[in-house]
Amino acid sequence: MSTTPTLRRGLRAPPSFLERDASARSPIIPRMAQLTPSAGYTLTLRVNLENMPGTLGRLTTAIGRAGGDLGAVDLVEHRGKVVVRDLTVKCRDEAHGQAIVRAAREVEGVEVRQVTDRTFGMHAKGKISVTSKFPLKSRDDLSMAYTPGVGRISRAIADDPERVWDLTIKGNSVAVLTDGTAVLGLGNIGPEAALPVMEGKAMLFKEFADIDAYPVCVRTSSADELIAVAKAIEPGFGGINLEDVAAPACFEVEERLRKELSIPVFHDDQHGTAVVTLGALLNATHVTGRPLDELKVVFLGMGAAGIATAKLLLHAGIGDIVGCDRNGIVHSGRSDLTPSKQWIADNTNRDNVVGSIEDALHGADVFIGVSGPGLVKPDYLEKMNADAIVFALANPVPEIMPEEMPPNVRIAATGRSDYPNQINNVLVFPGFFRGLLDTRATGVHIGMELAAAKALAGVLGEDELDEESIVPSVFDRRVMPAIARAVADVAASEAVAKS
Amino acid sequence: MSTTPTLRRGLRAPPSFLERDASARSPIIPRMAQLTPSAGYTLTLRVNLENMPGTLGRLTTAIGRAGGDLGAVDLVEHRGKVVVRDLTVKCRDEAHGQAIVRAAREVEGVEVRQVTDRTFGMHAKGKISVTSKFPLKSRDDLSMAYTPGVGRISRAIADDPERVWDLTIKGNSVAVLTDGTAVLGLGNIGPEAALPVMEGKAMLFKEFADIDAYPVCVRTSSADELIAVAKAIEPGFGGINLEDVAAPACFEVEERLRKELSIPVFHDDQHGTAVVTLGALLNATHVTGRPLDELKVVFLGMGAAGIATAKLLLHAGIGDIVGCDRNGIVHSGRSDLTPSKQWIADNTNRDNVVGSIEDALHGADVFIGVSGPGLVKPDYLEKMNADAIVFALANPVPEIMPEEMPPNVRIAATGRSDYPNQINNVLVFPGFFRGLLDTRATGVHIGMELAAAKALAGVLGEDELDEESIVPSVFDRRVMPAIARAVADVAASEAVAKS
Repeated sequence: MSTTPTLRRGLRAPPSFLERDASARSPIIPRMAQLTPSAGYTLTLRVNLENMPGTLGRLTTAIGRAGGDLGAVDLVEHRGKVVVRDLTVKCRDEAHGQAIVRAAREVEGVEVRQVTDRTFGMHAKGKISVTSKFPLKSRDDLSMAYTPGVGRISRAIADDPERVWDLTIKGNSVAVLTDGTAVLGLGNIGPEAALPVMEGKAMLFKEFADIDAYPVCVRTSSADELIAVAKAIEPGFGGINLEDVAAPACFEVEERLRKELSIPVFHDDQHGTAVVTLGALLNATHVTGRPLDELKVVFLGMGAAGIATAKLLLHAGIGDIVGCDRNGIVHSGRSDLTPSKQWIADNTNRDNVVGSIEDALHGADVFIGVSGPGLVKPDYLEKMNADAIVFALANPVPEIMPEEMPPNVRIAATGRSDYPNQINNVLVFPGFFRGLLDTRATGVHIGMELAAAKALAGVLGEDELDEESIVPSVFDRRVMPAIARAVADVAASEAVAKS
Repeated sequence: MSTTPTLRRGLRAPPSFLERDASARSPIIPRMAQLTPSAGYTLTLRVNLENMPGTLGRLTTAIGRAGGDLGAVDLVEHRGKVVVRDLTVKCRDEAHGQAIVRAAREVEGVEVRQVTDRTFGMHAKGKISVTSKFPLKSRDDLSMAYTPGVGRISRAIADDPERVWDLTIKGNSVAVLTDGTAVLGLGNIGPEAALPVMEGKAMLFKEFADIDAYPVCVRTSSADELIAVAKAIEPGFGGINLEDVAAPACFEVEERLRKELSIPVFHDDQHGTAVVTLGALLNATHVTGRPLDELKVVFLGMGAAGIATAKLLLHAGIGDIVGCDRNGIVHSGRSDLTPSKQWIADNTNRDNVVGSIEDALHGADVFIGVSGPGLVKPDYLEKMNADAIVFALANPVPEIMPEEMPPNVRIAATGRSDYPNQINNVLVFPGFFRGLLDTRATGVHIGMELAAAKALAGVLGEDELDEESIVPSVFDRRVMPAIARAVADVAASEAVAKS
């Protein structure tokens, strides 16, 4: 499978890691963030090159030395003694991009005319559009799609409200709802700044599950207001994907919406993370040969994702869980706990241990990090049992980079696409909502999440499973239908049980 | 221009009117509703025909006798002695459709196997979808469109909020917002039953102005709640099209939103109607050669559309206006007036006349009906001046059908596509919002409406204007850009004035 050199058992480094130039590191972002240039920060340099042998070679060498990952080199035009080219270069971050441009400018015979940021180009004017399923080119089209024909459709729904599912987009539409209070790792940056993320989510819904999702970025000042908006817009949607809502408000918002709405509400930061993590863990324990009920799992990060994942792992029958936040191990003797952390204190930490994350990891089998960059040191992990499983999911910079993990770590996973075992919510939410919509589910619960996690784990056959392959690729076409079927089966069996 | 027979000066009847079969009329809908089969109610009959000469002829004759407007006759298959065909038939309404099917069933050698309603087929599962502007096929695509690349876009907007207009869909997106309280002629049928109409509106936005509009159908119990939802969702949209919100709540909702939001809010039922009506009236008065300030205009219908149109006409310099509602002429002596009707009483009806619509029409030049089907009798119109202008805009059934108007009526217009002079809001709102979005207008006001009406009137050249052509076709490609430019010019000149 691998074409890249193996650093240590189970851990392939990306090629660019081996070629990296440490001198270009920004002092702001922790060191481990610096390893790999990403397509997320791609510059296109339009350059005038003197039309002499060696000019292009000097330029590409300079870009390589500066740590840039050179992609396409396109010819734009010949202008007498000058050749105009576009060079596409992946960089690590803004400072790195600037360093690369500086390096290019210093090359003899090269003039950098323009630098464009490809990511900004892709986002310009937005990434989604609302389109018609058929054109309106004649009066007949208009009179069927709009008045007077549409009046009969509205009448039919008014007479039999269930028909809204057949005769409108409701049955295939999801609101991607946010208040912008916890956007990616950026925090409370507000609903406008959240919009590019919500558009991206809508694209993923379309690409992976053919679901029509639309961003609803709301400015609210309380959980109550967010709940009121969700309740108000319910008629037009078949489901609500809560996104990037900060804890602890997200718990109350989701809990109340699940009670008060008759369409499913799924906070992806909680449950998407929980399902993909459990799915990966099921395969990891299969590879390492340990039963779930004997595992000791340690969490770092008791935000929305950490708490929801811990709950799902308990539901799946994990033996013991210890949760840690920035104040150390969550235990019932602490007086600083929010209600959801109190729940964790009451339902985990069987031996009532106290102390730091380092203490917690002593004798643990599994580490799950949903916290921040670089918060775990190699020597913490050395205290774990042999064949340890480490999921360092902080994104884009994990709690600890795979290269830094000690030899007792047998399986490592991150949220990154440039390492093996990428644990990414996009494996889950498209199929999960597909299953909910296909069955017109009225709610979501933990039984569906467990089924989805098992379905995700089951996508990989015995011959595909190993230390570097505990989850399918996000582009594996088997994933979405498998999860959709699992969720739909649970929903359908409940509908039968209720009827 | 005309290929259909002229009934009376300026009034062409549709062919099917001349061929109509009065016996098939439903007793429920007023007679004038019965004249024309519409594509809005199209049936497809799948029939087995005995493979003998004359069978198809007998069937099509029977359908024609029953008043059905036969379209395509498709061959599905030959099965020995049976020929299977699909016949597409426009009908007037449900009762008429049933009568046509009964007539077809009675034809010898014909078996009707299946009847499908084409309009329901078009609406099945909704008419719009949310699509990506580019595919997500690789990890690089994901890392640019979603994490980690999207983080930089969000950061850029958080740092400079104005950039949301460049870097997201906001600048091209419109919320089609309704509470479902006044849907078409159907009344308060609720937000779910309103959804097919709002989807249709979103299609029109796309088709005519390439605007990404999304339906937001809300369940609220007060104007305050609707206002709160609109304010909450503002961050993701560049404009709000209020639709099918009942009067008088719609006035308060719009007024407050215009004050409290920094994006334009346009209640199409009010202002779209006002602009298209004034545009048509400008051309009609040009054809009949009367100055605006000498006109006496009578309204029937003092709902959202009537009041907004009356206001715009006053603003345009119309001489005198008299408004009528179901209780007759609106005058300052009445004690049953809502605040907006009180405004009409205070600002119109110069001579303070009292009485019925019939009284009001005495000596009037223009009648504008935005009320209900069949509310005006021919003898009312006889009391109008010579060269009278009659806009009977109740939809789909006008206050009076053009065929029934007396000879002093020189120009007749309706909301129907099957008569000349179709006065339809789709002539206005796409271009109006295009102009607002292109200039990032922060509000809407009556000056823009006046400019848009003049622009609409100006689309038709002198050689295109006559009694049967006072407005362009809804498919006239000149309309949208002309209105967009007019609105943008006003918005831009104000932005300059403010700066």
